[in-house]
Amino acid sequence: MDEKKKIILTGDRPTGKLHLGHYVGSLKNRVSLQNQYDQYILIADMQALTDNAGNPQKVRDNILEVALDYLASGISPKKTNICIQSMIPELAELTMYYMNLVSVSRLERNPTIKEELKLRKFGEGAVPVGFLTYPISQAADITAFGASLVPVGEDQLPMLEQTREIVRKFNQTYKRNVLVEPQALVPEISRLPGIDGKAKMSKSLGNAIYLADEPDVIRKKVMSMYTDPNHLRVQDPGNVENNPVFMYLDAFGTDKDKIAEMKEHYRRGGLGDVVVKKYLNEILQEVLEPIRIRRKEFEKYKPEVYKILELGTKNARQLASKTLANVKSAMGIDYAQSLFDESKKIRKWKIVIQKTKS
Amino acid sequence: MDEKKKIILTGDRPTGKLHLGHYVGSLKNRVSLQNQYDQYILIADMQALTDNAGNPQKVRDNILEVALDYLASGISPKKTNICIQSMIPELAELTMYYMNLVSVSRLERNPTIKEELKLRKFGEGAVPVGFLTYPISQAADITAFGASLVPVGEDQLPMLEQTREIVRKFNQTYKRNVLVEPQALVPEISRLPGIDGKAKMSKSLGNAIYLADEPDVIRKKVMSMYTDPNHLRVQDPGNVENNPVFMYLDAFGTDKDKIAEMKEHYRRGGLGDVVVKKYLNEILQEVLEPIRIRRKEFEKYKPEVYKILELGTKNARQLASKTLANVKSAMGIDYAQSLFDESKKIRKWKIVIQKTKS
Repeated sequence: MDEKKKIILTGDRPTGKLHLGHYVGSLKNRVSLQNQYDQYILIADMQALTDNAGNPQKVRDNILEVALDYLASGISPKKTNICIQSMIPELAELTMYYMNLVSVSRLERNPTIKEELKLRKFGEGAVPVGFLTYPISQAADITAFGASLVPVGEDQLPMLEQTREIVRKFNQTYKRNVLVEPQALVPEISRLPGIDGKAKMSKSLGNAIYLADEPDVIRKKVMSMYTDPNHLRVQDPGNVENNPVFMYLDAFGTDKDKIAEMKEHYRRGGLGDVVVKKYLNEILQEVLEPIRIRRKEFEKYKPEVYKILELGTKNARQLASKTLANVKSAMGIDYAQSLFDESKKIRKWKIVIQKTKS
Repeated sequence: MDEKKKIILTGDRPTGKLHLGHYVGSLKNRVSLQNQYDQYILIADMQALTDNAGNPQKVRDNILEVALDYLASGISPKKTNICIQSMIPELAELTMYYMNLVSVSRLERNPTIKEELKLRKFGEGAVPVGFLTYPISQAADITAFGASLVPVGEDQLPMLEQTREIVRKFNQTYKRNVLVEPQALVPEISRLPGIDGKAKMSKSLGNAIYLADEPDVIRKKVMSMYTDPNHLRVQDPGNVENNPVFMYLDAFGTDKDKIAEMKEHYRRGGLGDVVVKKYLNEILQEVLEPIRIRRKEFEKYKPEVYKILELGTKNARQLASKTLANVKSAMGIDYAQSLFDESKKIRKWKIVIQKTKS
């Protein structure tokens, strides 16, 4: 990979297969970003464990699923380093040092964390420390690779701001520009509604169409989609705003004229949901078919997929380890590189050991 | 070292030279414990950074000072592994996994942390995350070495209880007895008052006699010691309880009859503070002289001292790395050992890479 390219980092928690929401909001972009940037994709298993400590098997199993989704979507291991968080110990070390630069109350003010705490319902007084602190661990991920660009949805902007604060605080405290302050890259469409009309497609809400779904599953999901609840009869005028079927058409359809025409027709009445859904189904089948075929192909080559992860992780670790060395050197705690050099001067080693016997 | 011996762990934050309080409460015991147990002493530089993030130089410099104090006190590198926390990345990794097993409110309830927060005065909303979470990092230290015994002062018992909770939670959650639940070993005298009469001798209170202090410094400190404030004239009856001079005599004097006699005399009046202090000075000079001489000897061999730390750290890391492997295996996230084994089955590696190009 070209050393001069800017570094870009994204990632996913391996807690389930990836779905159309991921595809539109992130995967599709990554496939083109890998041509312009030196791209790292982190399979964030340690982050996944912060709210799945009791179910590590789920995290373990989904590493492969997520990797298959990446490769099937067109992420190329020749252009992108796909790496596994827990296999890069430098990330844990960086997290420990950054934890001293962030106050507890700053973490508790993080809007993204507040939102996510609502969703997760840990119960009164049962928020795991690892969950509250994961924005710091994320800062470690981003800075370890020296990422200058991080594609994030709008709801994740406060997370990136936490990283930016840590970078500034670190560089200022240790008087060296060791860490790179990342910029956000907010995608055009950062989130897709669920098939039930809820604002976000998500595994836990059970409202997702997966990249790995079979054709008949996709069709059934599309035909069951939530539309305008007031559009009861075909002849009724319907609403296309906040109507997931039309939002999906906007996200995936390429025949913009046809879609505009359908919207107009739906608005004035006379266009049935079934017709629109059938058209959406055709489009989604076309988008998902090649991905599904590639995914099945990769499933036959699991050892090779693991090898891809192994090599990506190795490359990522090399980079993280350089950053950690710079961090420790800036802090002056690089004993192995500095203090311990002195131990090479030893001539009379045995004598000292004997002295200590007294 | 004998593998069958029980493992014992202690440690110090390298934020200053060690003083008589450390000697009485801990160092002296360690010198005898190293004969019975497989002893690890951790120079906890990462923990020191949790409230010294802005002053890493202090932490760095005091690593050598603390090591010299250990060796001077009779800690033998042949019997004890002296190791440096930040050079054992496994400790950071273990901390990350344990953080998911402890709730934020549990940490905030820790009595030791509450006490220490009062002393440190971080200011409203400015408690570093690393400081609040250091009991978890301590659990990583203790469990990494499989310590079954941890000598702690009474004020530190809540810290050990936190470790014990994490051990039970981990073993229960991951259904394997991977971690050892440590027991506390509370020393007879766990703390020495300061020369100013304050309950605790401490560097930050400026009321300490250091192991490295020169004879005249020791004498001046002893002669300036706080005694019974109501013992104004020699003939007045005096109080020996909570009188630091007599508490030091109890801690360091060997002629128990003479000390009992002096106490009696002081109580009924007629024994001046100067006489008692002069006797205490004699005793302390006798205790500290051989330590100071050994310390100066070791100061001439700094490279050798670093080598001792390097080797101790290497041994410690071997043990920590075994524990981390067991922890990851119990959690099922030992991909390197399990999943990635599959990648050894690869025959047609090149073909797959080409496929992903599409």
